[in-house]
Amino acid sequence: MTGATVYRLTVSYRGEAYAGWQRQPNAMTVQEVLEGALAGLLRRPVTVVGASRTDAGVHACGQAAHLELPEPFATGGLVHGANHRLPADVRVLAARRMAAGFHARKHAAGKEYVYRLRREPVLSPLDAPFAVRADPRLDLAAMRAAAERLVGRHDFSAFALAGGGHRSPVRRIASAEWLEDGPELTFRVRGDGFLRGMVRALVGTLLEVGRGRRGVDEFAALLAGGARGDAGATAPARGLTLERVFYPARWEGPPPP
Amino acid sequence: MTGATVYRLTVSYRGEAYAGWQRQPNAMTVQEVLEGALAGLLRRPVTVVGASRTDAGVHACGQAAHLELPEPFATGGLVHGANHRLPADVRVLAARRMAAGFHARKHAAGKEYVYRLRREPVLSPLDAPFAVRADPRLDLAAMRAAAERLVGRHDFSAFALAGGGHRSPVRRIASAEWLEDGPELTFRVRGDGFLRGMVRALVGTLLEVGRGRRGVDEFAALLAGGARGDAGATAPARGLTLERVFYPARWEGPPPP
Repeated sequence: MTGATVYRLTVSYRGEAYAGWQRQPNAMTVQEVLEGALAGLLRRPVTVVGASRTDAGVHACGQAAHLELPEPFATGGLVHGANHRLPADVRVLAARRMAAGFHARKHAAGKEYVYRLRREPVLSPLDAPFAVRADPRLDLAAMRAAAERLVGRHDFSAFALAGGGHRSPVRRIASAEWLEDGPELTFRVRGDGFLRGMVRALVGTLLEVGRGRRGVDEFAALLAGGARGDAGATAPARGLTLERVFYPARWEGPPPP
Repeated sequence: MTGATVYRLTVSYRGEAYAGWQRQPNAMTVQEVLEGALAGLLRRPVTVVGASRTDAGVHACGQAAHLELPEPFATGGLVHGANHRLPADVRVLAARRMAAGFHARKHAAGKEYVYRLRREPVLSPLDAPFAVRADPRLDLAAMRAAAERLVGRHDFSAFALAGGGHRSPVRRIASAEWLEDGPELTFRVRGDGFLRGMVRALVGTLLEVGRGRRGVDEFAALLAGGARGDAGATAPARGLTLERVFYPARWEGPPPP
């Protein structure tokens, strides 16, 4: 679009009420709610493209998305005008004008997800919306050894749900670690991209390693490819949060004049 | 009650939907909801006594409470039976049989509260239920210097709302500190007891110190007594969480045989 201005939005949401990010014909999604709020503000139809198609129930505190407008709009007005119209479980945290051609999904260089477990007999209502219970007897050393094997380029076919629309099952993981803070156990993973359901399948399979049902080498063997049934169960959506989307330095520079 | 068995419950709740802990004639409270769940489980009226009368909207992850039963009841059954009947925003985290005579409020030796601030232009929906926005330009060094002055025995009249029913406005603060973690700023305070609205009045006044509207010495002068109007505003309830209630060692020993 010649002369169009492009904005990048940072979006945070609680996933419970939504069938994921991506617009769908018969279910409420975050994209639809956000497009509706922006259309109300801008008084024209708006299309918002998200960096990550988070699944139903998955949260985000740093989803990235872009939109194009025929004329410039003050970024502060975009943030507050959208938030004024959004339900309480979706918020635009920031807006930034980008150089022409920016595309939130195509230009994303990496993403970071966090999965939260609580090793307690009963989940506190303060944690319950964003975490899942886990057995306190998990073998954390084994789970850490398995997580280390994730780093690098692998074929994640065994960890991908159907329907992701990905051409290649190969992804590069930059870091993967288990962090411990009292009863809380957090899996933090950063990579160039993730197949559909991949983080939750990794967590489900790492938990089997932690329970002694799979060895670390057995886990690592799954990273050479395989069928989805070869790996472990998909961990529940509510423990997963998209933390951040990374862009190459050229998209992080100062906005256009 | 001769032969009665006493149980201590650890209770967690989100405060939004409740007019505080303490039973009231015309409003829903956590005590009422918990008593209702236990009465359903035990098929008899039950009175639960909480250690802290948390205010409307205040959260808890470690409220303590006791109840007396004419006959012993398995603690696991108490926890899971109550949780099965409780709404999702209230949970019994643990139950423990105590020596006869235990009283959750009278025997409490100390309490710890946490107040969460987020120095961000827009609150994420993941933080919004449990935190309050704050200005990123707050003078944290001044707020820390003021918090240090809190430690010790002081007259907290200037920080007490009416209606607490306290005989003396003197309380001993064991520790008070501001913790920083990225945009998050947490006030953690531990003391032998707190007057009604005291933690929120302390936070509201410390924020005035952080904004340069009050000096550290001016803050410290309020600890010698004064009228509620002398101190700063009451910070919103949703930022406050009762973290823990402490008991003397004799109540922390092994449960009776």
